[in-house]
Amino acid sequence: MNYRMLVRLLAGVLRIAAAFMIPAAAISFAHGETAALHAFLITIVIMLAISCVSFLFPPKKRAFYAREGFVLAALTWFMVSLLGALPFVLSGVLPNYIDALFETASGFSTTGASVMTNLTEAPRGILYWRSFTHWLGGMGVLVFLLSLESLGSGSDSMHIMRAESPGPQVSKLVPHTMSSARILYGIYIGMTLVLMGLLLLGGMNLFDAVTTALGTAGTGGFGTRPDSMASFSPFLQWVVGVFMALFGVNFGIYYLILQRSFKKAFRNAELWLYVGMMAVSTVIIAWQIFPEYGLGSSVRHGFFQVSSIMTTTGFATADFDRWPQLARTLLVMLSLIGACAGSTGGGFKISRLLILFKSLKREMQRVLHPKSIVTVHIDGEPISKDTIGNTYAFLVAYCLIMALSILLMSLDKTSFEANVTAVIACLNNIGPGLGQVGPMGGYAELSSLSKLVLTMNMLLGRLEIFPILILFMPGVWKKARS
Amino acid sequence: MNYRMLVRLLAGVLRIAAAFMIPAAAISFAHGETAALHAFLITIVIMLAISCVSFLFPPKKRAFYAREGFVLAALTWFMVSLLGALPFVLSGVLPNYIDALFETASGFSTTGASVMTNLTEAPRGILYWRSFTHWLGGMGVLVFLLSLESLGSGSDSMHIMRAESPGPQVSKLVPHTMSSARILYGIYIGMTLVLMGLLLLGGMNLFDAVTTALGTAGTGGFGTRPDSMASFSPFLQWVVGVFMALFGVNFGIYYLILQRSFKKAFRNAELWLYVGMMAVSTVIIAWQIFPEYGLGSSVRHGFFQVSSIMTTTGFATADFDRWPQLARTLLVMLSLIGACAGSTGGGFKISRLLILFKSLKREMQRVLHPKSIVTVHIDGEPISKDTIGNTYAFLVAYCLIMALSILLMSLDKTSFEANVTAVIACLNNIGPGLGQVGPMGGYAELSSLSKLVLTMNMLLGRLEIFPILILFMPGVWKKARS
Repeated sequence: MNYRMLVRLLAGVLRIAAAFMIPAAAISFAHGETAALHAFLITIVIMLAISCVSFLFPPKKRAFYAREGFVLAALTWFMVSLLGALPFVLSGVLPNYIDALFETASGFSTTGASVMTNLTEAPRGILYWRSFTHWLGGMGVLVFLLSLESLGSGSDSMHIMRAESPGPQVSKLVPHTMSSARILYGIYIGMTLVLMGLLLLGGMNLFDAVTTALGTAGTGGFGTRPDSMASFSPFLQWVVGVFMALFGVNFGIYYLILQRSFKKAFRNAELWLYVGMMAVSTVIIAWQIFPEYGLGSSVRHGFFQVSSIMTTTGFATADFDRWPQLARTLLVMLSLIGACAGSTGGGFKISRLLILFKSLKREMQRVLHPKSIVTVHIDGEPISKDTIGNTYAFLVAYCLIMALSILLMSLDKTSFEANVTAVIACLNNIGPGLGQVGPMGGYAELSSLSKLVLTMNMLLGRLEIFPILILFMPGVWKKARS
Repeated sequence: MNYRMLVRLLAGVLRIAAAFMIPAAAISFAHGETAALHAFLITIVIMLAISCVSFLFPPKKRAFYAREGFVLAALTWFMVSLLGALPFVLSGVLPNYIDALFETASGFSTTGASVMTNLTEAPRGILYWRSFTHWLGGMGVLVFLLSLESLGSGSDSMHIMRAESPGPQVSKLVPHTMSSARILYGIYIGMTLVLMGLLLLGGMNLFDAVTTALGTAGTGGFGTRPDSMASFSPFLQWVVGVFMALFGVNFGIYYLILQRSFKKAFRNAELWLYVGMMAVSTVIIAWQIFPEYGLGSSVRHGFFQVSSIMTTTGFATADFDRWPQLARTLLVMLSLIGACAGSTGGGFKISRLLILFKSLKREMQRVLHPKSIVTVHIDGEPISKDTIGNTYAFLVAYCLIMALSILLMSLDKTSFEANVTAVIACLNNIGPGLGQVGPMGGYAELSSLSKLVLTMNMLLGRLEIFPILILFMPGVWKKARS
C-alpha cells in the first residue's frame, strides 16, 4: 500500500471540497445567515488544516495499483461524508451528528433521502450545499481531482477512475485519463447549465433553478420544498423528467455524439433497454393511475416517477406511495435496476442486468449441450470472463448486503415494507421508499442504528460495494506488495 | 429428443401415481366417504388409461441425455400436478380446478401452502392424499421410478436423477443409479417410520401420526388441523421440530453414517453451516419472543419455527406473523436460504450459499491481485467452474422469477408484504408467508391469476428452475441431436 500517495490524494480531495464550500458560504453571507456562514468557514479551515498533513509525507514513489485505487475511493467518500456533515451540525440545522452524516452521505452518494423536516426555514447556504453534494458526488470527486492534475502513468490514474465510476466495465473516452475526466466534466457542466436555463425559462426562481439543476444532474433528489416537485408547473416537471432520463445515460454516448460517431453511439444495447424499460413502465403506470389523473397528467406523473426512480434520482411530482399496488411494486422493481453504467445514476445498472441475462442464456445452452462453448457478446464485443465473474460477484454482494441491512433495520419500529424499501432506496441511491419512508414521508423518525445502516448502504451503493468491502480484507493494508 | 422413451417413462410415473392413490381410496372407503372414493377410483382409471399410450409407441433406442432428463422432470411434475388435482375436484372438496391444481402442486412440491378452508370437515382420504403428495414429492417421483427399474446405462438414468434432485451437485451414492435410488428411499422410509412411531408414542392418533409424518418427511407442511401444530403437546412439537431438521440434511450423510464413515460424514461444511444458522437463529428469535412466552416455550417455538422455515416445511406452533419485526424478518431471510442439497427440503440451498460466499471471496482477491488464480474449495474438494457458473445462473434466474412473480401478484388486492412473502414462500416451497398469507391465514382468498403464478413458482422451486425454463428454449424440441 502506497500510504504517502494515498495521503497526498486525500489532501487534494479535501482542498477541492473546501473550495466548493466557498460558494455555499457566500450564499449564506448574502442572505445574512450568520450561523451557517460561520459553520462553513470553520469547516473550510478544518478541511484545509487537515489537508496540510500531506506536506509532512511527500510521496516517494507514484506507483498506484487497483488495490490503492479502491482504498482511495472508499476513504475519500468516508472523509467527505464525515467532514461535509460539519456545516449541518455547526449551523444548528441538524444538531445530531448522525443526522448530519446521513444527510451528507445521502447528498454525496446522490441518494436524496432526507432527515430534514423544516426545509422552508433552513438557511439557503445549507440547502445549496446539500444540493451541490449531489452534483459533485454524481460525476465523482476523484474524477474531478483527475481532471485537475495528471498523476503520472495512465494506468495508475485509471485505477482511481475505475474505483469511483459506476458500471461493470469502466474505460477511458480518450487515451489520457486527465483528458477523459475533463471531457466528462465538460459535458456534465454543459448539460447542467442548459437545464438551469430551461428551468429559469419555465419561471423558476434562480435559487430553485440552481438547486434543482444540481440535484437533477447528479440524479440526487434533494428538493427545496416539502412536496418535492409537486408544486412546480407541468412544463418544469417535464423538463426535470426528461433531464433526469438524460443524466441516466452513459456519458460515453454523449461524447460519441459530440464526435459525430452517431452509428457507434446508438449501437448500444444498454441504451435501448433503458429507453424501452422506461417507455413500457410509463405506459403501465399511466394506465394504472389513469382513473385518478386523466390522460395528460397520468402520462406526466407516470413518466416523471419512472424516470426519477430508474435514474435513482428520487424527485416526486405525486405521492406514489398511494398509487395502486402494481404501480408501487413496479417502481420498487425498477429501483432495483437503476440507470446506465457511466452515468451519474446509481443502482445495479442496466448493463449488469444485460450481462446477467446473456450469461443465464449461455448457461442454459451449456446445460443442453455440455460441450459447447458460447461467449457472451454485447454490442458485438465479447464480454470477458473476468467481467462476468465480477458482475456475478456484485450480485451476490448486493443481495447479502441487502439481506443483512433489512435484518438490522427490523430492530426499528418501522413496517416490513418500509424496512425493505428503505434499504433498496438507499443501497440504490434513490431516496424515497414506500410507507413511512415514502416520497412525502422521510427518514427523520428512524433510530440512530437504522440511520447508520442506511448511511453505509448509500456509500456502498455509490461506490458499488467492492471498494468498501475490500477495506475489511486481510492483506490489503500490508505495506509491500506481494 | 427421444420422444418414445419420454412417453414410456411418463407412463411409468402415471402407474406409480395411480398405485399410490389406492391407499387413499381405501381410507375413503373405510370412512364411508363415497364422493372421495369415487373421485379416487375415477382418477386411477384415467391415469391408467392415459398410461396405455406408451404401448403404442415402444422406445426404439434408450439413449437419454441431459436435455431429455430435464424435459422429463418438467413434464412429470406438470402431469402429476394436473392429474393429482382431480380427486379434489371430483370429490367436491375444491370444486374450482385452479384451487385443486394449486393444492396438488403445493403438495407434490412440498410447499404446503393451502387454499382449503374447512380442514375439519374434509374427507380423510383427501387429507391423506394431500399429505402423501408431500412424501412422494419430497424424495422425488422419478427417483422412485429409478428405484424400481434399471434404465440401461448409468449415465442415462443419472440425467434423470440429476434433473429431479435438489442441489448444485448431484452425485450417486453408489455406482449404480438404481441402487442409489433404493438406498435413498430406504433411508427415507426408515426415518419416516421412526418418526411415525415417536408421534404415536407421544399420544397422537394414527391418522394424525401418519399425515404428520408424511408432511414432515417431505418437508411439506400440510397439517390436518386449522392451527397447524399449535394444539399438539410440547413433546410432539419437539419431535416434529427435530425431525424436520433431520429431513433437511443431505441424505448422503446418512448413507455415510450407515457405512460407518463418520469422519467423512461430518466433514461437511454445508451441514455445519446449516446447524450453526439454525442455532443462532433460534437464539435470536427466542430472545425476541421471550417476553411473550417465557424461557422454555420461547426456545421451543423459536426452534420449531426456525427448523420449519429453514427446511421449508412450513408447519407452525405459533402465529409468527404477530412476532416482533426482527423475528419475522429473520424468518423471511431464512426462507430465502432453505435446506441442504440432497435433502427433501427446498429453497436456494445452503450449499449454493456456500459456493456463492466462497466465489465472492475469490472474486475480491482477484480484484486485488488481478493475476492470481484461486480455486474455490468446499470440504477439501475443488468446485468446478461449471458448477460455479451454474450456481450463479441459478441465482440470476431465481431473482428474475421472484421479481416477475411479485409484479404479477401486485395485480391482486393483497399487501406488498403479503405479495413478496407469498412469492418467497412458494418459490422456496415453504408454505406460509406474512400478513394475509401468514401461518394462520391462507391462500384461498387470492385471485386465480395469483394462484396460477404461485403454482408455477412452487414447481419452479421444486425442480430448481432450469428443467422448466428449458422447455421454453428454442432447439429443445428438435428430434435429432445436433
